[in-house]
Amino acid sequence: MRRIIERIWLPGDMIPNEIDLAKEFGCARATVNRAMRALADEGLLERRRKAGTRVALNPIRKATLEIPITRLEVEQRGGTWRHSVLERSEVVPPVSVASRLGLSDKIEMLHVRSLHYADNHPFLYEDRWVNLSEVAAICDVDLQEIDANEWLVQNTPLTKGDISFSAANATKQEAELLQTSEGEAIFVIDRTTWNGDVPVTIVRLAYAPGYRMHTEI
Amino acid sequence: MRRIIERIWLPGDMIPNEIDLAKEFGCARATVNRAMRALADEGLLERRRKAGTRVALNPIRKATLEIPITRLEVEQRGGTWRHSVLERSEVVPPVSVASRLGLSDKIEMLHVRSLHYADNHPFLYEDRWVNLSEVAAICDVDLQEIDANEWLVQNTPLTKGDISFSAANATKQEAELLQTSEGEAIFVIDRTTWNGDVPVTIVRLAYAPGYRMHTEI
Repeated sequence: MRRIIERIWLPGDMIPNEIDLAKEFGCARATVNRAMRALADEGLLERRRKAGTRVALNPIRKATLEIPITRLEVEQRGGTWRHSVLERSEVVPPVSVASRLGLSDKIEMLHVRSLHYADNHPFLYEDRWVNLSEVAAICDVDLQEIDANEWLVQNTPLTKGDISFSAANATKQEAELLQTSEGEAIFVIDRTTWNGDVPVTIVRLAYAPGYRMHTEI
Repeated sequence: MRRIIERIWLPGDMIPNEIDLAKEFGCARATVNRAMRALADEGLLERRRKAGTRVALNPIRKATLEIPITRLEVEQRGGTWRHSVLERSEVVPPVSVASRLGLSDKIEMLHVRSLHYADNHPFLYEDRWVNLSEVAAICDVDLQEIDANEWLVQNTPLTKGDISFSAANATKQEAELLQTSEGEAIFVIDRTTWNGDVPVTIVRLAYAPGYRMHTEI
């Protein structure tokens, strides 16, 4: 890693083979192999069967993002978290939601809208749909006691997720809930989570103005 | 992983020790150890010396984000990339920039503002400052030929970076450049990159409305 980030090995360069590296560093070949795999996972090396291993042409490390539990996120920022369930209903979803999940728009889903607070200031407005045929047990859960996301993470298999981040102008309703003005820029996360090929939940998270998502590489 | 995501091993559960797992799976203990480490890196396991290994209380995998070269990002979206350097000057930075980098606001830096296009539509407005005492060689580079980010990635050691994502209302200048209206919500990435403890560059990337950053877990 040091040789790559200090550009001693330049982007595109072939690097020595594992046997030579093991000799140089005085370690087992398996150790070199493990290190190579880690560097390839981070995006610093490109490994090709037969063609050998090169320094990536754009050796930038990937950033990792935690997908946070809102309660923990607020607490990590030093705030006191609470949340308030604004709506909980079993209704047929709009076509836009059903079609993104590949579900029928005739079958009822759980619709939960809630507002999360940090130190009594609105922090996040959450609009969530849950596939009841996959997670019927949520019907018996008091979502004011434990928020839907935290309950789902702890009680349902979630094998994959699609996440997108974008900016949006606050609608009138969002502005009222987040105590800001209509049109104010807000940070939005749209996330769909699956168990295998079965959709579990789709959520839109609209953060109060000023929110920044931070990561390091 | 399957046992964790299917909640056979529940959040907070202790998992069997490596010797028992190696026996069960008929593999070497080193293989089990490597798998445990990979799962811990992904955030699914919590390993504590002496206390043993537990399933994470919030077993959500971390998402990884590529920090893209804009040219490649546009090309991956199927577009044709070009960019136009709007300004290139060696000037003293505003205090806000100098102080974030821990540099003097009396020493000149390279200021580069450029507009990236996808299929001739504005895609990204980039406002960048480069620490010339660290990367003097950039002075001889034609930044219309290769964009500053791509040149820096290929030619400078970049050992760490701070990245934050946020939403902002387009300023009048940004709106004109991105061919949108003042106040429109835009997605913004602020990134500072370091070589060890020396700041290399700070950049604000303002994406045209409609931009979504996508990842999967």
